[in-house]
Order: sequence, then structure tokens, then C-alpha cells
Amino acid sequence: MTHNVAILGASGYTGAELVRLISQHPSINIAALAAERKAGLDMAQVFPHLRHLSLPTLCKIDEIDFSQIDLCFCALPHKTSQEVISALPKDLKIVDLSADFRLRDPDAYEKWYGNPHSAVEIQEEAVYGLSEFYRDEIKAARLVAGTGCNAATGQFALRPLIAAGVIDLDEIILDLKCAVSGAGRALKENLLHAELSEGYHAYALGSTHRHLGEFDQEFSKLAGRPVKVQFTPHLLPVNRGILATVYVKGTAQTVHDTLAQAYEKEPFIEVLPFGEAPSTHHVRGSNFCHIGVAEDRLEGRAIVIAALDNLTKGSSGQALQNANLMLGEEETAGLMMAPLFP
Amino acid sequence: MTHNVAILGASGYTGAELVRLISQHPSINIAALAAERKAGLDMAQVFPHLRHLSLPTLCKIDEIDFSQIDLCFCALPHKTSQEVISALPKDLKIVDLSADFRLRDPDAYEKWYGNPHSAVEIQEEAVYGLSEFYRDEIKAARLVAGTGCNAATGQFALRPLIAAGVIDLDEIILDLKCAVSGAGRALKENLLHAELSEGYHAYALGSTHRHLGEFDQEFSKLAGRPVKVQFTPHLLPVNRGILATVYVKGTAQTVHDTLAQAYEKEPFIEVLPFGEAPSTHHVRGSNFCHIGVAEDRLEGRAIVIAALDNLTKGSSGQALQNANLMLGEEETAGLMMAPLFP
Amino acid sequence: MTHNVAILGASGYTGAELVRLISQHPSINIAALAAERKAGLDMAQVFPHLRHLSLPTLCKIDEIDFSQIDLCFCALPHKTSQEVISALPKDLKIVDLSADFRLRDPDAYEKWYGNPHSAVEIQEEAVYGLSEFYRDEIKAARLVAGTGCNAATGQFALRPLIAAGVIDLDEIILDLKCAVSGAGRALKENLLHAELSEGYHAYALGSTHRHLGEFDQEFSKLAGRPVKVQFTPHLLPVNRGILATVYVKGTAQTVHDTLAQAYEKEPFIEVLPFGEAPSTHHVRGSNFCHIGVAEDRLEGRAIVIAALDNLTKGSSGQALQNANLMLGEEETAGLMMAPLFP
Amino acid sequence: MTHNVAILGASGYTGAELVRLISQHPSINIAALAAERKAGLDMAQVFPHLRHLSLPTLCKIDEIDFSQIDLCFCALPHKTSQEVISALPKDLKIVDLSADFRLRDPDAYEKWYGNPHSAVEIQEEAVYGLSEFYRDEIKAARLVAGTGCNAATGQFALRPLIAAGVIDLDEIILDLKCAVSGAGRALKENLLHAELSEGYHAYALGSTHRHLGEFDQEFSKLAGRPVKVQFTPHLLPVNRGILATVYVKGTAQTVHDTLAQAYEKEPFIEVLPFGEAPSTHHVRGSNFCHIGVAEDRLEGRAIVIAALDNLTKGSSGQALQNANLMLGEEETAGLMMAPLFP
Repeated sequence: MTHNVAILGASGYTGAELVRLISQHPSINIAALAAERKAGLDMAQVFPHLRHLSLPTLCKIDEIDFSQIDLCFCALPHKTSQEVISALPKDLKIVDLSADFRLRDPDAYEKWYGNPHSAVEIQEEAVYGLSEFYRDEIKAARLVAGTGCNAATGQFALRPLIAAGVIDLDEIILDLKCAVSGAGRALKENLLHAELSEGYHAYALGSTHRHLGEFDQEFSKLAGRPVKVQFTPHLLPVNRGILATVYVKGTAQTVHDTLAQAYEKEPFIEVLPFGEAPSTHHVRGSNFCHIGVAEDRLEGRAIVIAALDNLTKGSSGQALQNANLMLGEEETAGLMMAPLFP
Repeated sequence: MTHNVAILGASGYTGAELVRLISQHPSINIAALAAERKAGLDMAQVFPHLRHLSLPTLCKIDEIDFSQIDLCFCALPHKTSQEVISALPKDLKIVDLSADFRLRDPDAYEKWYGNPHSAVEIQEEAVYGLSEFYRDEIKAARLVAGTGCNAATGQFALRPLIAAGVIDLDEIILDLKCAVSGAGRALKENLLHAELSEGYHAYALGSTHRHLGEFDQEFSKLAGRPVKVQFTPHLLPVNRGILATVYVKGTAQTVHDTLAQAYEKEPFIEVLPFGEAPSTHHVRGSNFCHIGVAEDRLEGRAIVIAALDNLTKGSSGQALQNANLMLGEEETAGLMMAPLFP
Repeated sequence: MTHNVAILGASGYTGAELVRLISQHPSINIAALAAERKAGLDMAQVFPHLRHLSLPTLCKIDEIDFSQIDLCFCALPHKTSQEVISALPKDLKIVDLSADFRLRDPDAYEKWYGNPHSAVEIQEEAVYGLSEFYRDEIKAARLVAGTGCNAATGQFALRPLIAAGVIDLDEIILDLKCAVSGAGRALKENLLHAELSEGYHAYALGSTHRHLGEFDQEFSKLAGRPVKVQFTPHLLPVNRGILATVYVKGTAQTVHDTLAQAYEKEPFIEVLPFGEAPSTHHVRGSNFCHIGVAEDRLEGRAIVIAALDNLTKGSSGQALQNANLMLGEEETAGLMMAPLFP
Repeated sequence: MTHNVAILGASGYTGAELVRLISQHPSINIAALAAERKAGLDMAQVFPHLRHLSLPTLCKIDEIDFSQIDLCFCALPHKTSQEVISALPKDLKIVDLSADFRLRDPDAYEKWYGNPHSAVEIQEEAVYGLSEFYRDEIKAARLVAGTGCNAATGQFALRPLIAAGVIDLDEIILDLKCAVSGAGRALKENLLHAELSEGYHAYALGSTHRHLGEFDQEFSKLAGRPVKVQFTPHLLPVNRGILATVYVKGTAQTVHDTLAQAYEKEPFIEVLPFGEAPSTHHVRGSNFCHIGVAEDRLEGRAIVIAALDNLTKGSSGQALQNANLMLGEEETAGLMMAPLFP
């Protein structure tokens, strides 16, 4: 059985990534592609790398007949997303890739994103889209809120450790190294090649990055008490990838075993042999997440490192994984391609 | 029906690329992976990006039971390749990715590669592996000689034009811009990141690059008279891609129409609308070749530009395409993945 | 004696490059830095790499007291530049880095730039700023028009050959590989890191790039007859550098000797030993231009390759070299720093 | 007065960087360049970017007449360096760039470097070459041991804080992001462009990197008690730069003020306004170190970030700064060039 999907926000990187992935999916058909400002263009004019595919012409959202759509991917900017989703049919299955439905608490949303939430009642329906940890809820959900790409990476490294109580909850530091495609296709001076290549820097200093809202929500829920981590992202001259270097207090071997056991049956999460370091090179373009654990020379301290591709496992791959669950398809369908290296 | 294949030279980039592609192929099974110096290791230790696959342990060539193998990919260095292939069963289907069986004339081989050919009798069997132009011969072949990656790119731009007689055969200039993975995983100073990134240069000046042997052979055969092109490759700080900018004398519109018609039914060759420029960005990681044609301001001159991924369409993708033909599979099987962008 | 200079357009890359260079100049003082939209900011806020310098605060052009200025660098966009320069004191020495005063023929300007020239009378005063070839005129000039960066590169490769009559004037092809900083700090999608890195492509196909206006003017003047070249630029994922691969018909050894002799006493132009290829790596951040010549396998054809840094020798370094000439300083003052490698 | 210097190990990156810097120095003359395996070549053959300079031909060390040399830079690999220096005249001023004389305790040397120290008596003479903190000792020294590039970066961030007692000495985490030129010009697979570009990873997990020997020595000496930090380096696809993100416990404002005060008069160390993040972009090719401090959302925690160019301030620039001190020259001579951006 073939499912018809629509992609809203098809002219951004996560939209294009969805098309790339779905083009190899055995049972999903792209029935509509919306991009307000590019409506009327062919996808090949916006993303020439998709030229070989037969795709619908880009349209405006209100041109889509949603009665023919089985599931809608919403790859719009936050704030826009909640407005658009409010206007969609109330029984349409939706995977949202924006930040709008990630935070259960509207006050937390307003704190981190600066504007009041305008679709609070829909927020209540939303399931947090970290597939490996919300699998059953996602299967039953109408609306799934894709996670932040940084938030996903950090959670893959930490959730089993917090759940198992094997690390000190008050001493968690996440130092993230992020590729530039996470910032999207926006025209900003700091995203220009000449500004970015050949150098790197931290940003959102002092644990002020918005994805902390997700960490706070999820880690605190898991621990049954407030957990606040330190989190410093760095922007690197690379197009795809997130590497989270996480400093924790706990026994490294226990940390490793806890993670290895937690992910033993997960098709996309690979825990490396003890002491080995993952690399974003080895997950690029794929839906895999590699995790390594090492013991520090200082007793009782461990380093956990997680690597994934922000556009795939961190965003559009995760979205397709969730769509598979919602549509009753094999969870891994269309997602088992190997990373591109070199 | 599943075909068992062996890959000799699995520790190089083209070997790894074959594994990446075949991992998504519906009816090919990797039964053996050979790499003399890495024998005994798991592929994941040599190429961690393939960690998620269940693959045979790397072995030595003489450990392989070729009676169980339906087709053998030989991704070894030239000269080694002819020695190894000479010793393989004489009825084994082989796709060779080296330069050893590309040139029909042993003297030409010796001229361009510097050593006498030691398997001349096997050379006679070999079919030149440019799938789009030797399709029938490849279907019937036992041994297919994969083309040089630069040679493939230039031929996609030029063969239909030479065949149709629409350009001046004595005034063809190919200016190629090549990514670094074409040079393989060898330890050479000029391939170091610090030497290569942030700059670029020409090499093999004066039309001395070995792939000219292929151009001379194929273009002359096609024209029925000697054709000698100028060819200057440039090394760029990019991992994948070849862009051939070809300067020809002929009517640009005719050039475009000739190419468009020649490739109309080809699944992997896309001729862009007249005047548009292809980019290696838009073919990366895929088996597609994009071709653009423009008219110069100087009357009677045209520019033809072809872009492909040297490791895929230029090498391992081509090899799999040929293997599909030889095994009676759908030619496009395992090869329709979209390019990775960004 | 110290000369006071003003830099108009200090918030762009060529403005910043001027500051970098002048900061090491023994006898030039930066007295004013203008940037309309950034007026009031410190240069360190716009270009943090210049933080260690004591520089005037950015101001608007009309805040500058030009009576205190000995020479003014104008690093503004074309069209803006002619308007601004029209309003400056008529006896102020000016080095303009824009395209506005490069073309002597106002019709040619309008043809290539799309707008009529609004300062034709000033245009008549302008000297074309290719220091090595207009040295005496530049010394005596009030207004010097800096050349296009691509135009400079091509001319270094070709002028002595055209002047000496050693190549076929109707068969000149320039294939240029250009770094991204040549496009400036403008917010354009194709200049984003995610769009540009890891791939490359040609643009301005068919010899339609504006710098052809300069080639036509200068080469025709030199030859005493119309000379029209083919010129295809390519955009590369590198920040600095231009490599011009020039295909000519002529005797390679003569071509080499002609260039070697022409540049024998030039401090910034290095002709490499016959057959060697220059690299943009080896001129980066410097005012040097490296030129290589090789013989093609096709008789009577040669390849000339020139490499320079578009922001230095191609723009701001050239501008400072011209300013030195205009101010009676040593031509090489502030310009002898070695390239940055790696 | 002109000083004659020799550079041993001139075919490596730090050797070439010394030549680049000294070429602009007003009173240092390069009298000899040694490179054992490249002896007899011109420097332009080994480093074409230095082609414009008049330099001595590369020679073997034993061909140098050290009686004519005022100071010798030793840019050799560790272990080789101690052997070579043992054989040099005992009154020759030496700046060593290797690891051989950094650690005062021969046991510590053996622990971190794996071989016993063979020149223990010379080790006793050596002064640790962190110019800003050992200025007086360096002025009087015969032998100065240049610091590790990572070690320098971490110390610039931390020394004033440890000295002032404003941070918790048992809770210091250094997460370093390192460019590839720090690994030198060695032929290693992981340094190839195809292996390194487009991705990144941590290495030396668990605080096992050799530069920890320097941190332990210097921080413990400063604190008057053992101080052991956590330190994880990451390899990035960039040629120059080190960014140290340091997580400390202390009052951020105090941390900032302590650093600002400590470096107030230092010509090369710039402490940014509170809350601003430095970037390796803005120090590239220069001898500057930029330091930023921010307050974490978690009370009592601060982030200190230091950025420098590993080849300049982290190695050859530091070496020249020390040579200036040893020779009685202005400390900043030849070192005030602005960073190269973009």
C-alpha cells in the first residue's frame, strides 16, 4: 500500500532531505510539495540535485487537497509552523520538524522562543519525536514534534545514563560541534562560505541555546527531578554533522555498558567498543548515530561522545522514521542507506 | 535470485564505495572482501562508516573460493590488477576498476603506464566499460574494464558530438577540475589536508595524463580517424566530483540538441536546458551525470560541461551498472539514490 | 613623511584587506574609515580580526574632512563608486577598486554593466591600474581605476604574449577558477557555506562575464586590432585565489621566454621554470603572482597558468601598490609579506 | 644590528612558518636552513610559497658553521631534537620547538613520550617558553623550550585564574578543537584531505594527550599543589587554529576581570568584552590570542574560550617572540602582522 504525503517547506534543507530519503522509500509517494515563495517552480530549479525525480510542482499550502494526503511533513520555521498546523485538518497525521510542539509547557516555549504559543490546544496532542524513546506513543500519535538536532544528539548520549542513575545529574557538560546546515538556508552573514570556512567558534555562550528547553524537559522528566545541563555549541566549517562531547561523573565502564545495553536492539544506534571515538565522517548522509565512551584519567569521570548527521538522524531521517511508525510501515524503511564516505 | 560477488581491494575508496552501493542492492550479496594488507580485520575497522553492515571479514585473495562467486569486482591498483586477474578462474565474470584492461593496444598501455602488459591474451577479451555506449557488449562480456573517471566524464561530454560529426575534431580542449578521492587513499604529501585545502592547481600539464590513452582510443575509433584532444586536470580541495569544461568548435544549439537526443532515454545522464551550468554539488554520491551546453560569444564556438561523482558514476557506480548488465539484472538496480546535498 | 588615507567602503572584504596591508606600511596612516550602514561602529565589531589595531571609528563619507586626506581608497560597489567619486574634491588622489573607471569607452561600460555612466568627464582622467603595465601613468595620475581581479590574472598571463606577437590572437581561451571572496560579503544564497563547499561549477557561461570588457579593451589596444578571448569562470569552495588556465597557440618555449623576460625585474611576478605549475596555495594572502608555462602534446600549443590572490594582488594589494606609486613611496612598501601556507 | 639565525628542520610546517615570519623581521637574517632529507634543494622546491625570498640552500646540520650563528631554531621532531641539541655548541642560543625540553622532570618526560630523556643535563638549563609568563627567564636563557600548541592555548585561558585562586582547581575541563597543521607534514592516513575534510572527531580520549604533561607541570607549580585537568582534543577540517573551550567553576565576572587585568599590557593577548566569543578566524596567520569569558546559566560556572593560530602563537610565532627576548630585540618585532581574514 502506498501512502501519499505532502511536504510543507520543501525549499529548505530539511524539505530537500525528506525528498532525498523518500525517493528510496518503497511505499511512500510524494503527492504535494509546498513552498510559498517558490510556488510554481519545479523542485529541480530550487534543488537541482533532485532533477532526476518526477515530483509535483511546488505549490502554495492552500492549493493542497489534504483529503488525499495520508501524512504531512511540516518543515517550516518555528512560529510559522504552529500557525500553519492550526489551519490543517484536525485528523491529518503530521510530523512537524520545527520547534513549535517540542516543549509541553507553553511558558517554557515562550521563554526559549520569545513569543507566546498560539496553538496550545494542539500542543497537548503532540508526542515528542525521539523515535527510540517514544516509539509506542508515536505509533498512536496524530502529531509528532521532531526534536532539535542538537537535542537529539545530547539525548542519545545521556538518556539511558540518566534513566539508570549511573551519573551525577548536577555535573553534566555538553560541548557540541555543529555543522552549518543546521542553521538552514537563511541568508545570514555568518553562514557565508568566506566567513565560515577555515575557522570556527562557539556561540550561544552560557547555556543559552534554545535546545536547552528540550534537555531540561526531557532529562528532568526522566530523572523525576530538575536536571540542568551546561551546553555550548560550536559552529564548524562542515555541512553536515553534530558531535556531542559529553563530560559526566560516573564509572566509565558502567556508562558504556548501560548505553550498549540500552541500544542493543536499536537499528540506528551503534555503541562503539569501549574507548573508541566516533566521527561525524562515519554517519554523514545516514540515519545512524555512533556513540563512544572513554574513561578519563581522573577517577570517576567519563566522556561520552555521540555523532550523527543533523539533517538525517537529527531531523529529516528522524521525521521519516516517525512517519514509518505512524503509517504502520517498517520503522527502517527508506533509511538504511550507508553513510557517504569520503 | 541472489548473486554472490567478491570485491578485491576492499580497503580502498572504490572498494568501500562498492560496498556502500551494493548494501542497497536488492539481489547482490557480498560473499567475500579481500584486502591483502588488512586481511583478518573487520571492514568496520578499515571503514567505520560501514559498521552497521554484516560483512565478511577481510581476507586474502587466495582464501576466496571463487567457485561460489558469480562476479568479482577487482578494485586493485593497475599492474597488480592484471597479475591478479590472470590467476583467477578463466570463466569468472569480472569487473575490473583499474586501468589494466582499458587500452586495447598493448603498446598504448606501455606508453601511458610505463610497464609492458603482462596479460595480453586476457586484454583481448575485455570490453570497455562505458555502460551507455557498450551496453550490448557488456551484457555478453566476461571481463569488463571500468573506465578512468576523467575519461568517463570527457566521453559523456563528447562522444555523441564526435559520432554525429558536429564539432571540429582538431580543436577540442578539456579543462578538468577533479576532486581528491580520485587519487585514492595513498599516503602522498600533496593529498594531505594541509597541502590541499584552501588552494588548487593544475597537474599533468601538457596533455600528459594517462587517461588520454582512453580518449585517443575511443575518440579515434568513433571518428574513424585519429583524434587528439588537449586535456589539463586540476586538483581541487573537494572530496568527490569531476567537472569537465570542454571547449569545442561547432554550433552550440546543435551541440546541445545532439547531446539531448543521444541521452534522451538514459536513466543516469541528464542534459540540462540550453545555457544552464551543471555543478558537482548536484551529483555527489550519486550515479548521475549532468551535462550543460552554452553558446560562446565567439561565433561557432560552444562550451560543454559535464559533472559527475568520480567514485560513483566515474568508478564504483559504473562498475555496479556494468555488473547489473552482466548478471541480467535491471541496469539501475542499487543505483537510483539521490545525490547528497548539501 | 606619513600620508593620511581614507578608505570608503571599509566594511567589505577589500576594505578590510586594505586595512590589513596598510597596518604594516611604514608611512601610511589610516585617517578615516567610512561605511555608511555601519557608521558609528568600531572596525573590531565589523572585522574582529583587526581588533588589535588603533583605527578610527567607522563614519559616513560626508563626515570626512578630505582636506586632511592625501589619498582616498574607494572600495565601494560599482555605480555607487562613480556617484561618490563625483562628489569628492577634484584634486584628491583616488584609487578606486570598483569597476566604474576601468573601461575608457562609456558605451562599453553601459554594455557590460547595464547602466549609463554618470561621471564620464572623470572617467577621462582615470588611469587603468595594472601597476606593472601603467607604472608611469599611475605615478602621474589623480584617479587610478583598479582592475577586475579576473582581468588582472588573465592579463598577467597574456599581455607580454600579445605585445610580442607570439600567439594566435584569435584562439585564446581562459578557463578561470575563482575563490569566493571575489564575490564580496553580499548575502546571496549561492555564497552560503552549505551551498558552496564540497562542490564547484562554472558561471557566466559563454564569455558573458563583465571582466571581458577589460580584456577586450586592453588586449585590442595592445594588439592594435580587435582581440576577443573566450573566458569561463568557475566558482570554487575556497576563500582566496584565482587560477587562470590559458590555452594558446604558439611555441611554448617562446611563450615561456617572453613571459620570463617581461617580468624579469618585476618584484611581484614570478615566472616558474618551464613546465612547472603554479598553485593558489603559494600566493595566498600575498601580492605575488606566479606564472607557469607548459608545452602541449599537440604541436604549436601551449598552456599558460597564472595564480594570484584575488583580494591582494587582484584587488587591495594592487590598490596599495598603485597608491605607493602615486604617493612617491617605494612601490613594494607594505606588500612584501610572504604568502600564508598552509 | 643584524642577528644570524639557523633553522633546523626547515622542511616542516613550523620551519616554513619561521621563515615566513622572519622574512618580515627588521634585524634577523636567515643564515642557514637545515633539512636532512631535503639537503641540496632550494627552499622554493620544498615550499614554493617562499619562492620570492633569497634563502640559503637547504643543507645538513653538520654543514652549518655554528660559530657564525647567533641563535638556532630547532624545529625537529621530539627525540631527534634532544640528540641534535646535545651535539650543538654549548654556548649557542637555542629556541627548541619540540617537546624535548618542556618537562622539567625526566620521569614525566618518559611517562608522556615513551622514551627516556637522553640529555637530562641540558634539560636543566631549559626555560619554559611561554613568553608572557617567563619573560625574564627567557631573556637570560640559553635554551628555551617552546610550548605545545595546545598547552599554550589552555594556559593562556587558565594561568591567571589559577594564580589568582578564583576557580575550583579540581573541576577544570578543557575541550579543544584543533586544526590539522598541528600534526605536521607527516604522511598519515588520517591527515589525508579525503579522510579529514567534511567531518571531525575527538582523539586521545580520557585525558591521554601528551600536552597534559605541560598542564600538570605548570598548573601544579602555579597552584603550589597538584592540579589535574581533563583535556579532550578534537581534530577539525581546518588548517590553522586552536580553540580551547574551558569549563570552570568560579564567578564569571571575576574570571573575566582577572584575565583582563592580567593581559592588560600584553601586546598579543586580547581579552574580549564580557560575553563575547572569540573565533580562530580572527587570529589566523597572526601571533594574537583572543580570549572570551561568559557566565553559564548554572550559578558559579563560567566558560573561558581562547583562540590562537597553532603555527604562529602556538609555535613559530612564540619561538620568534622568545628569540626577540633572547637577542635583546623588541619583543614584537616581525610579529605584528594582522590576521588573514577571510
